[in-house]
Amino acid sequence: MNAPENFSLFNLADWSSQQLAAIEQALSCWVACPVEAPAPAGLGDAMRYAVLDGGKRLRPLLVLATCEAVGGNPDAALRSACAVELIHAYSLVHDDMPCMDNDVLRRGKPTVHVKFGEAQALLAGDALQALAFEFLTPDDADIDHAMQARLCRILAKAAGFQGMAGGQAIDLASVGMPLTSEQLHEMHRLKTGALLQASVMMGAHCGAVSAPVLEALRDYGAAVGLAFQVVDDILDVTADSATLGKTAGKDAAQDKPTFVSLMGLDASRQYAQQLLARSLASLDQVDAHGLRGTAALRALADMLVNRQH
Amino acid sequence: MNAPENFSLFNLADWSSQQLAAIEQALSCWVACPVEAPAPAGLGDAMRYAVLDGGKRLRPLLVLATCEAVGGNPDAALRSACAVELIHAYSLVHDDMPCMDNDVLRRGKPTVHVKFGEAQALLAGDALQALAFEFLTPDDADIDHAMQARLCRILAKAAGFQGMAGGQAIDLASVGMPLTSEQLHEMHRLKTGALLQASVMMGAHCGAVSAPVLEALRDYGAAVGLAFQVVDDILDVTADSATLGKTAGKDAAQDKPTFVSLMGLDASRQYAQQLLARSLASLDQVDAHGLRGTAALRALADMLVNRQH
Repeated sequence: MNAPENFSLFNLADWSSQQLAAIEQALSCWVACPVEAPAPAGLGDAMRYAVLDGGKRLRPLLVLATCEAVGGNPDAALRSACAVELIHAYSLVHDDMPCMDNDVLRRGKPTVHVKFGEAQALLAGDALQALAFEFLTPDDADIDHAMQARLCRILAKAAGFQGMAGGQAIDLASVGMPLTSEQLHEMHRLKTGALLQASVMMGAHCGAVSAPVLEALRDYGAAVGLAFQVVDDILDVTADSATLGKTAGKDAAQDKPTFVSLMGLDASRQYAQQLLARSLASLDQVDAHGLRGTAALRALADMLVNRQH
Repeated sequence: MNAPENFSLFNLADWSSQQLAAIEQALSCWVACPVEAPAPAGLGDAMRYAVLDGGKRLRPLLVLATCEAVGGNPDAALRSACAVELIHAYSLVHDDMPCMDNDVLRRGKPTVHVKFGEAQALLAGDALQALAFEFLTPDDADIDHAMQARLCRILAKAAGFQGMAGGQAIDLASVGMPLTSEQLHEMHRLKTGALLQASVMMGAHCGAVSAPVLEALRDYGAAVGLAFQVVDDILDVTADSATLGKTAGKDAAQDKPTFVSLMGLDASRQYAQQLLARSLASLDQVDAHGLRGTAALRALADMLVNRQH
């Protein structure tokens, strides 16, 4: 059985629902758990509101799928999956605030600052970021210390000025400005791509993989991360708010440079398909090194590019 | 020579200026260094503005003094010192924002959001928090991985909902409300105390110390952390803005509960001295276990309680 056939037989819905159950349970237990470690003065409520009951959990699924592919430590992968989702969730909370995108709708619900106030939203985001690194460094789990440190390093770098925060700063500075294709790619490589790629790399580092496999997975992560943003830009134009669960058409309304505004809708769609092909080719490399468990990664890339919201 | 004599002979100014030189150099090299790893679109400038050229560096000095006392790894201590300062610096940036304390003056300079805008201030704070955890998990330094993971865990917990962010949430919820002494202590134990105590504990975990020494240092950290806030409350009433380098009298203006409003000025001063005595008694315990290098910790506690700004 070759890899594409393997992929076509793979049931993403079944696989995802199993993984998602584990992710939701872990997040629900670990995020400012009201019983075990209550967060004071409504902070826990805001943190849980920001994280639970919403979101596609794409990043956690990428972590778990990659860990599965490399036969890594499932406990480390679950912690990594939750940690990367906390970073993603906090970034949405802060990004939605009035001084940033000033958005009132997210995942079909009022945004955190609308529901809890700006100050609480700011604090909840800050606390979620700290919690991500707490997740990665348990003192009572069977996770090698070198692995813990490496996972922290990957996540910190992807979240910080050389990753997500850096990309957001470029985004901020480029509203109403024409960007070159190169600048637009750089912005998204950092803003969205870094954390998506980090999800793959964290999953990889939950196991012990050779340098060529790591390199192929890195390229898969880069292609998938970029494709995600291209599709996001397409959906911002083609889908409605109800389908998206967030305000549609806001890029154009805010005069933000996007792949659609730069290259047009048809070319953007073609580009997304090219990136999907590239991500699958990277997984061929992974398979060529003897790892054949890439079906979930293949299906996730396909789902991500061909999603409707 | 007994401990108090040792302490009285200790020259804090000399010791501090040596340590501060190392701290400032490390922060200047490592925080979004314009040469080695430039942060995009002004983000690096905002991050450096928030961290460099200002601040008493009390937390870093506590880390280094504790590491010295326990004979720990100086490289780990310098990284910990910088990491804890980044967490402190980011908390000030976010705390000063209009949706929180709305303060325009900090360390005698315009606050970050006044200088760079609110969105950039939000991002700079976020990026500084991520960078703290990057500092603690280098892949090219001679720091044991278990130590790296432990330092991350201590810092993440002290920064998050069970520490600083939790205390800030209580602070937010208690403006204009009468707090009991117990509630006020709990707020400050989290808001300021957790990070000061974490500074001591991180310094301790840069070495290998016995449980009783760790316990004594934990108590020193708790006493010093609380004393710091009591003195802060006193200075908010007794000092002027120029001396403080930040807006004086703002607790009363914002109707915030403080130790002074709860117990009066004289009793607050006595309480600060009691806490100093308790912190020194904890160090006697440390000395009793054979560690005699606590002079810097003693001098820091004394300075912190008897400071004028």
